[in-house]
Amino acid sequence: MANGSVATAPDRSNLISFSSRLKEGRALAQDVWSIFAAANLPADCINLGQGYMNFPPPKWVTEAAEEALKSVAPNHYSHPRGRIRLREALKQFYSPLLNRDLDVESEVLVTSGANEGQYSVFTAFLEHGDEVIMFEPFFDQYLPSVTFNGGTPVYVPLHPPTSSKLQSVSNEWTIDFDELRRAISPRTKMIIVNTPHNPVGKVFSREELEKIAALAEEFNLLIMSDEVYDCLVFDGKEHVRIATLPGMWDRTVTVGSAGKAFAATGWRIGWLIAPPSIIQPTLAASTRIIFCSNSPLQEAAAAGLEQAKERRFFETQLAEYTERRKILCNAFDDLGLKYTIPEGSYFVLLDISKVKFPEDYPFPVSVLGRGRDFRACWFIATEVGVSSIPVSEFYCEEHAQIGEAYARFAFCKDTETLNSAAVKLARLKEFIDN
Amino acid sequence: MANGSVATAPDRSNLISFSSRLKEGRALAQDVWSIFAAANLPADCINLGQGYMNFPPPKWVTEAAEEALKSVAPNHYSHPRGRIRLREALKQFYSPLLNRDLDVESEVLVTSGANEGQYSVFTAFLEHGDEVIMFEPFFDQYLPSVTFNGGTPVYVPLHPPTSSKLQSVSNEWTIDFDELRRAISPRTKMIIVNTPHNPVGKVFSREELEKIAALAEEFNLLIMSDEVYDCLVFDGKEHVRIATLPGMWDRTVTVGSAGKAFAATGWRIGWLIAPPSIIQPTLAASTRIIFCSNSPLQEAAAAGLEQAKERRFFETQLAEYTERRKILCNAFDDLGLKYTIPEGSYFVLLDISKVKFPEDYPFPVSVLGRGRDFRACWFIATEVGVSSIPVSEFYCEEHAQIGEAYARFAFCKDTETLNSAAVKLARLKEFIDN
Repeated sequence: MANGSVATAPDRSNLISFSSRLKEGRALAQDVWSIFAAANLPADCINLGQGYMNFPPPKWVTEAAEEALKSVAPNHYSHPRGRIRLREALKQFYSPLLNRDLDVESEVLVTSGANEGQYSVFTAFLEHGDEVIMFEPFFDQYLPSVTFNGGTPVYVPLHPPTSSKLQSVSNEWTIDFDELRRAISPRTKMIIVNTPHNPVGKVFSREELEKIAALAEEFNLLIMSDEVYDCLVFDGKEHVRIATLPGMWDRTVTVGSAGKAFAATGWRIGWLIAPPSIIQPTLAASTRIIFCSNSPLQEAAAAGLEQAKERRFFETQLAEYTERRKILCNAFDDLGLKYTIPEGSYFVLLDISKVKFPEDYPFPVSVLGRGRDFRACWFIATEVGVSSIPVSEFYCEEHAQIGEAYARFAFCKDTETLNSAAVKLARLKEFIDN
Repeated sequence: MANGSVATAPDRSNLISFSSRLKEGRALAQDVWSIFAAANLPADCINLGQGYMNFPPPKWVTEAAEEALKSVAPNHYSHPRGRIRLREALKQFYSPLLNRDLDVESEVLVTSGANEGQYSVFTAFLEHGDEVIMFEPFFDQYLPSVTFNGGTPVYVPLHPPTSSKLQSVSNEWTIDFDELRRAISPRTKMIIVNTPHNPVGKVFSREELEKIAALAEEFNLLIMSDEVYDCLVFDGKEHVRIATLPGMWDRTVTVGSAGKAFAATGWRIGWLIAPPSIIQPTLAASTRIIFCSNSPLQEAAAAGLEQAKERRFFETQLAEYTERRKILCNAFDDLGLKYTIPEGSYFVLLDISKVKFPEDYPFPVSVLGRGRDFRACWFIATEVGVSSIPVSEFYCEEHAQIGEAYARFAFCKDTETLNSAAVKLARLKEFIDN
């Protein structure tokens, strides 16, 4: 994700002060995406930083968008709940996965990307001072989305693998459930679960989700389950949906994304699936925030879901991502650096604590005064020619040192690009401190 | 605009209460759009209620979207500021209109419809308790967009024409500037100007805007100038942009819309043009709310702006709308009912106070207990077969009786539809109380 830089000084005409909500949640800080934007790096640097594909959506999906553009209604306002064709497609797709007969009128909401959907849930449910628990490393948009809506983020770290082996698996990133319980206060309103997890790749186990569910029941909490990578779960691993656990449907909103499912991150079509008690207030929020989502690409997303099964699209796509993951992991094996094999999503965390670089390297100001990982990622991008994202950005200040050991590499790129990246990464060897 | 109904009772699982912000600003009330949705009215009722076109965008604009869909980058994330092609097109288009050389990096922001753009300005600038002045009748989204962000709406009515003539012109709706001054308090942060105005069709005069500007300077206020109908100003009337008045650039954000400009209300592409001091905080808000706007339709909007001049598109479109306005106004002339000829936008306000209907008519519950105009519009839609929108919805409760005299008819429909509507409207004669 490529954020805009908002860190330049206000101009002289700052006559009218902006809201204090922008002073929280890092909203005005220069974000990692703009620091590591392609434009700031060498022209031949291969971009494995930002999580978007360098290939287009399937042709049969974009053709449905072209078809929609040729008619009248799909160029005009959609119902704020979403176009009925897409809601029907979501019902067909998710009903068996959630073991329910979903109601298109009250249990499905189309949003302008998963991002706006999640933002609307916060708008709909947070009271000033309500606490939202998120696991670190966290998807960076959660933090300001919570604070903009008056909420207070509370952080619970996933603990990194302790093994000395070079390869870990993402399920070796673990939750300390005593720590999670201690994080709950009378003001806790919600826990954000993200499975498959960005950036760890962790697919939460049934046991872990059951323990989270038990706490949600005990303390009457909402669960926002961000499952935007649900079509990317590898090696036959089971993707458990927390909404399907006993008693959890009533308190869970499941978040999905056409952008991740169909390689169309710029379409801004996402969805929420939840009981009417959650969808109804969220619709009230979303209707005012965006009114409705764009119509032509809703039609295309509907076509995608309608035809995916017959075309075996997700199976084929998963096989392609499995191959992509292998290319990147093999490159890390050759380097002899520790990394986490993701069981889901399209990110690999590389342990960069042994990558050495001269402290007097000509770093830009933007990475100085940040975690060591910012400098390491900058060094790797400029010296080796492969960009990645420093992971301390996904931690609160107090826990940032956990993230400093890691760089996130995205493998949502074609195999040719990943093979070129592997060749370049081999040059990292000379900078490894053994 | 067709809102979703959110008025059904919460289901039994309302375990977790929604935010108190939904209790303000009519956010959970059944809105006028869902009451007068086509689905609730007779199948052969002609829909002049909702403000969307029954014709598609120009073919040369949709073709640009199809082109974008065939390549890679325009299917993926855009920069949160908007795609550079669209920002360049906006610069070329608006720089002469605003008498400035706009900077694409700091003075232009692409948003997910004008709606989300305006919401983001409120998020960026409102402190809890800040007051926002809006002229009545007001575009209904303003109210909850302000209250969701902690603001307090303050209402100043446009005063209806006092003449006894059947035809008024929209500039006969006037501002009482003493009233406007009295509405300003130490907590006033912003005035919303909407020109051309929805639903009145008023194009604010230079003198009116100068007086508003003087108050903005005196009390250090922001101006949000909603100019989404700027391409629909009739009869050679001058559309003055408040941002061009002396000293006003620094405190004005101008709002535009591809949906209105290119008959593509479902594309959700809008834009804000303002100094960096306004764009920068608004970008920080918008980046977190939606991250970015959809990419393929940004490319199409860019193509539209790039080619509009050479194709004389806006001139042709204006001529078409002038013809459409004439059909509807002629129908009202034939009825002998008072109405307002709009100098801009695509709405006509019809004075329905002389339309008589039986009080025991089988009205649905949704229009009972609302203003008389709700019942009148329902009656006209069901008996005559032309739907419109009751205007009291666009007033605060205190001033609702001003709006009760009016129904809003949209003429953003093809001439065939408008001619059929005119035939049907002739039947209204028998229900007029002279």
